Amino acid sequence: MKFIHTSDWHIGRQLHNQSLLEDQRHVLAQIVELAVTHEVDGVIIAGDIYDRSIPPANAVALLDEVVNRLVNELKIPVIMIAGNHDGHERLGFASRQMRESGLHIIGPLKPTLTPIVLKGKSGDAVFYGLPYADPATVRHLFESDVSTHEQAMVELLQQVHKHDSQGLPKVVISHCFLDGGSESESERPLSIGGADKISPSLFTPFSYTALGHLHGPQFKGEPQVRYSGSILKYSFSEQHQKKSVTLVELTAEGEASIELLPLTAMRDVRIIEGELDTLLEEGKADLNRDDYLMVRLLDKRAILDPMGKLREVYPNVLHLERTGLMANNSQLAIGRDQIKKGELDMFTDFFSQVSGEPMSEAQQAVMVDAIDELHKQERTS
Amino acid sequence: MKFIHTSDWHIGRQLHNQSLLEDQRHVLAQIVELAVTHEVDGVIIAGDIYDRSIPPANAVALLDEVVNRLVNELKIPVIMIAGNHDGHERLGFASRQMRESGLHIIGPLKPTLTPIVLKGKSGDAVFYGLPYADPATVRHLFESDVSTHEQAMVELLQQVHKHDSQGLPKVVISHCFLDGGSESESERPLSIGGADKISPSLFTPFSYTALGHLHGPQFKGEPQVRYSGSILKYSFSEQHQKKSVTLVELTAEGEASIELLPLTAMRDVRIIEGELDTLLEEGKADLNRDDYLMVRLLDKRAILDPMGKLREVYPNVLHLERTGLMANNSQLAIGRDQIKKGELDMFTDFFSQVSGEPMSEAQQAVMVDAIDELHKQERTS
Repeated sequence: MKFIHTSDWHIGRQLHNQSLLEDQRHVLAQIVELAVTHEVDGVIIAGDIYDRSIPPANAVALLDEVVNRLVNELKIPVIMIAGNHDGHERLGFASRQMRESGLHIIGPLKPTLTPIVLKGKSGDAVFYGLPYADPATVRHLFESDVSTHEQAMVELLQQVHKHDSQGLPKVVISHCFLDGGSESESERPLSIGGADKISPSLFTPFSYTALGHLHGPQFKGEPQVRYSGSILKYSFSEQHQKKSVTLVELTAEGEASIELLPLTAMRDVRIIEGELDTLLEEGKADLNRDDYLMVRLLDKRAILDPMGKLREVYPNVLHLERTGLMANNSQLAIGRDQIKKGELDMFTDFFSQVSGEPMSEAQQAVMVDAIDELHKQERTS
Repeated sequence: MKFIHTSDWHIGRQLHNQSLLEDQRHVLAQIVELAVTHEVDGVIIAGDIYDRSIPPANAVALLDEVVNRLVNELKIPVIMIAGNHDGHERLGFASRQMRESGLHIIGPLKPTLTPIVLKGKSGDAVFYGLPYADPATVRHLFESDVSTHEQAMVELLQQVHKHDSQGLPKVVISHCFLDGGSESESERPLSIGGADKISPSLFTPFSYTALGHLHGPQFKGEPQVRYSGSILKYSFSEQHQKKSVTLVELTAEGEASIELLPLTAMRDVRIIEGELDTLLEEGKADLNRDDYLMVRLLDKRAILDPMGKLREVYPNVLHLERTGLMANNSQLAIGRDQIKKGELDMFTDFFSQVSGEPMSEAQQAVMVDAIDELHKQERTS
């Protein structure tokens, strides 16, 4: 049994108001190619398929494209569970009608498990998809007395333990937060105050656990209890993460061997730092200048329309931090003279950028008078 | 070939802010029962499945229930097309994965037809589902020069005419507005200014045309070019309509025999009219007093909280018209004395309802003084 484990597609997500749909189409096509190259017996998506419970229509159309390609054209079964971002009812609509085709969508949590047997060229395995569910949902559905995410998971896993897999390896698919897991800035907390953490040891009895929620690829406890991570960097905090999908091969005895298959983004997400002129100069030689960028400008002077200037070279600057100016400001004493000097300096910078020439002494004198006059009016008004 | 033709389910719709979900569940269960009783070979839903492009989650869950029952448990194929209320991409998601199960959802219009052959105990037939599409969509998709709904339909039907049905009867499913059709108040216009009308004669060549959009059951041109009508009364303007689904039986030669199968609403939608005391008295003996009601009150006097009083007897009064008061008001002369008398009358009614006793002459004198005083202030302010 050989399968790809992926999660956190977040189709329809934006990064600083920039649609990522084409970037998502690009990596999803890679996942399809990897599934073909590695001749996998299935693709497992561990939740957060969409970014929102009501995804935009073009996100729905993209997922439709991907499942058509995998399930119908390539005959590779797909199992997906709803994550905390997904609308469970919406995602799960008509899932019973899709099963025969090889598309298994597990939307709302049901009181009974629906184990899915995937046929493998080198042996079969049983997959147990547990959609994201908060403790209140589990308490209501199972009439049990659980109040934490861990207690809820214990309740759900009891069914998996009880199920007779006829000797086949058991794979659990879950969307949850394992204790000790490393967060990025792009996950939405499952609950406030830390009652969302689950001990990795709950999952060690299974041949493999395909997890979703955390956006950095990682395992906890044992290598086979694993997050595949998201398919793209969904925040600048992920700039150093290497995104991948996980290729899992199970022996008939349920031993897992694991390989990370890297994904290459159409545009990387990264942070660059420096003075404006240096960055503009470097940008001309930067082959990846259309990456999604956060720019930290170190200049201490005022700059007219820095975003406009940067975007002439780096078209996808999404966020700008005036690191230099902030450092400067924090050192500013607040005496009246200092502030006045500050205003004059600001205007001098502005003037030279607009006119292309430095201010003459006469011009500066006029400005000092004007600023003084303004302050006088300020004091008397 | 025997099938049920229905349309305009509008799942998730509200009537004057009242959710109709339980009413919809009730009639949809009847449709399932009728399909069983009449041993049909398929159920056709001609658009406006949901009321909105983004239906609420419980509407999605209800449709899921109904298709599970029909397609999976009863093995009755279902064909549905998107109407002008539906979100085409959302409704059409994973439709390729559902086909094998017998669920055929036709979401966005595609450049190529997908004819669907349904197997019938007394002969097969080919169904051509044409989802709702405005002329601009057809123009774009077919690179043709159409500007009216009729021209767009001619373009779409060309494909149906060309398709070789191997001698099987052809059934067209469409969501459109036929010229001469009777509207209710609950349809959303397809376009402003009447360019949405289509000649019924376009459809007469086919064995049957299953239409959606108009909420009253009716045919135009020929009996086999037919609207099934909506499953519930979705406005008070429909109070006298009889809602039904259409049972269609086609001979192998494509001759259609048609029967209307009535639907019984859990609560009827109707208008009652009379004076408050009479209506309250009649309501005690009214076995259907929990119907959804519009009440036209003929009383000419002011009444304190008439909605509250009515709802004690008729729990589902959704709308109240003070017909009597409006008639009274329209007759009011606008002389100062008349208005003053009007105010006194209003207060006298109010007083007697609150206190249970008529106003004494002394009390009336105080009120006349108070009203005079108010008018004096009004004139001087």
